[in-house]
Amino acid sequence: MTASTTWVEGAAGSLFDLDNLPYGVFTPRDSQDGPRVGVRIGDLVLDLAGISEDLWWRSPSLNAFMAAGPAQWAAARAWITEALGDDSHRERTAPHLHPLDAVDLHLPIEIGDYVDFYASLQHASNVGRMFRPDQEPLLPNWKHLPVGYHGRSGTVVPSGTDIVRPCGQRKAPTEDTPTFGPSRRLDIEAELGFVVGVGSALGGRVGTDAFAEHTFGVVGLNDWSARDIQAWEYVPLGPFLGKSFATSISHWVTPLAALDAAWTDLPVQDPQPLDYLRVDRRSGLDIEVEVLLNDTVVSRPPYSSMYWSPAQMLAHTTVNGASVRTGDLWGSGTISGGEPEQRGSFLELSWGGAEPFTVGGVERSFLEDGDTVTLRYTAPGTSGGRIALGEVTGLVLPATEPKQP
Amino acid sequence: MTASTTWVEGAAGSLFDLDNLPYGVFTPRDSQDGPRVGVRIGDLVLDLAGISEDLWWRSPSLNAFMAAGPAQWAAARAWITEALGDDSHRERTAPHLHPLDAVDLHLPIEIGDYVDFYASLQHASNVGRMFRPDQEPLLPNWKHLPVGYHGRSGTVVPSGTDIVRPCGQRKAPTEDTPTFGPSRRLDIEAELGFVVGVGSALGGRVGTDAFAEHTFGVVGLNDWSARDIQAWEYVPLGPFLGKSFATSISHWVTPLAALDAAWTDLPVQDPQPLDYLRVDRRSGLDIEVEVLLNDTVVSRPPYSSMYWSPAQMLAHTTVNGASVRTGDLWGSGTISGGEPEQRGSFLELSWGGAEPFTVGGVERSFLEDGDTVTLRYTAPGTSGGRIALGEVTGLVLPATEPKQP
Repeated sequence: MTASTTWVEGAAGSLFDLDNLPYGVFTPRDSQDGPRVGVRIGDLVLDLAGISEDLWWRSPSLNAFMAAGPAQWAAARAWITEALGDDSHRERTAPHLHPLDAVDLHLPIEIGDYVDFYASLQHASNVGRMFRPDQEPLLPNWKHLPVGYHGRSGTVVPSGTDIVRPCGQRKAPTEDTPTFGPSRRLDIEAELGFVVGVGSALGGRVGTDAFAEHTFGVVGLNDWSARDIQAWEYVPLGPFLGKSFATSISHWVTPLAALDAAWTDLPVQDPQPLDYLRVDRRSGLDIEVEVLLNDTVVSRPPYSSMYWSPAQMLAHTTVNGASVRTGDLWGSGTISGGEPEQRGSFLELSWGGAEPFTVGGVERSFLEDGDTVTLRYTAPGTSGGRIALGEVTGLVLPATEPKQP
Repeated sequence: MTASTTWVEGAAGSLFDLDNLPYGVFTPRDSQDGPRVGVRIGDLVLDLAGISEDLWWRSPSLNAFMAAGPAQWAAARAWITEALGDDSHRERTAPHLHPLDAVDLHLPIEIGDYVDFYASLQHASNVGRMFRPDQEPLLPNWKHLPVGYHGRSGTVVPSGTDIVRPCGQRKAPTEDTPTFGPSRRLDIEAELGFVVGVGSALGGRVGTDAFAEHTFGVVGLNDWSARDIQAWEYVPLGPFLGKSFATSISHWVTPLAALDAAWTDLPVQDPQPLDYLRVDRRSGLDIEVEVLLNDTVVSRPPYSSMYWSPAQMLAHTTVNGASVRTGDLWGSGTISGGEPEQRGSFLELSWGGAEPFTVGGVERSFLEDGDTVTLRYTAPGTSGGRIALGEVTGLVLPATEPKQP
């Protein structure tokens, strides 16, 4: 009974066709209406608050809708598909479509806790080689558990937010003492983010088989990183200021249902993980990522190469009894494939700055003021074509120095 | 003009006299009223929503009041002091006093980000000796910056919440592979917590001189820690599941104004920190802590021994442009003094379990199921006596094993 083609002009056959339908929060620029939930179709946003009485659409975040759970997610996707697919709904629905360039898009979720993982074998190996050249690149725990840490949820910003180059303490191994100033090794991490819809109780666990009952969808995610600040501060308690200045996510949250055709085999996990981390082989996601520096593609990391699956990351997060909440966000960690042109950070693309790469004839390594980085994501759609996930972009602005005390 | 003695029976001369007045959130057990803000005097709670029309008292958290800023904090403290101190207000005020044993106390703040520091030189040195016996105990960055990391805000629980022993991966250095099961090295960390009242803008900084403009007050804080889980997981991104199962804070938030007499000299900082971390010498806090295991005092950590000051921790958190929000919480890190009986964790008190200590004639090291740990805090009050900060207590319950997948 589900419609398979849309009456919305320009949408059929696009990356935002009826099999995609990501959710976001927007304000129509020409109205007095407050922020509300919309769904993207083609280059338009459907104002869900305009065509449905459900209160969760009249909200500055997706949280109320996400908390309602999988049955409501499926019901909403069915009627939205019907409204945009069946010509009989056109007259009633069309007035609630807004062109993307006539709305302001907002951070789509109110974020609870933000956790960042480190789930790419290639990324962890590359970073290990650079940060700890005298040791085995992969630390002993890495293949036994998805290594992760908590990041700063208050500085997760929506795509398009300018990124001010952070200041902090930097100390090269060759220097005796740290100096204070703007990061000289500003970087990105191309990641995929996962959003919790339904929370869990303190003391409970979300098993790998309960992933889809709790996870609402995915976002594009750029974990901006100041490598020099991070390298000096990170022992023994992990990254702090090297990451906490900003994490960008896409305006659009792609519901899991849109990714039904994207599930693919995980890489072989050897040694086999402990029971609580066991998953079906088909737990990976075939999502292709593009990293653009000033509009030039510099890398194409394949999400399908990720060692740890999203269901394993969620099961690990809660196996100690920690609860999750609606709006919790976790990042996959940098997506890096096995080939040099598949690396998801400039740290790796330039091998710590030692091997600059060429963009438009110019040698580049870390980010410069004025650079714009954009991450784009596509996946197989359920109708045979491809869908786009929300893109993430940000412009690097010069540092501002602190006033003298 | 401020009253100096209270008409409330039993309060004068107690640890909760008129010079203390911590805030909390409570529900009167015998009424239909929802959670509201109260202030503690003696063994009673004054229902602020009962005697003031300000909406921020009719709230399930202190956040709205905290966001109002220092002028409002001072004004509220002045009129509450007047109401409880001047006999002419007695008739109107007394009906809004509830005995502590007739109310339910709640988590007092809606927590944004939770950061945990590592600010005790003795604690960092002790842990370094135990976790990295082949290296210098203090890592090279430790005296240059207050080392910290983000913790899980969603599992911060109020005093009195039972703590279920966490399960997770544990691997002793002598074992080849990790096993899954209940933590065998469950521990506490006796800390002081600081609560942000007024937030800051992304890209801005909170200098050390702006500490009191942004910080509302302090809470007691127990950073429950599973040392075996932590030791296996923590490289290279820091503690995750070893800490995220629970962090307990006190029901009561002591406003900074009540600590005016507690400021004391910091230990000498050598090397001198970078400019953005410079503070007046008088930036430490003379707060005495007691750690009780099943009602027996096992340690008395002195907060005055902490190397990094709270103003330095806040300045460091924001020096990279990261914003803070109303309700953000940061922990000082374990408070450990220079003497063995001043150590703020069982890890240190038992030297990693190698040197059990005696409690009531029994040898003890890490926590056992059925143990209750209570942290108590006192400080000099502004009227010459002492005040108590909110205590933190928790009972350890046995682990629950996951269902088989």
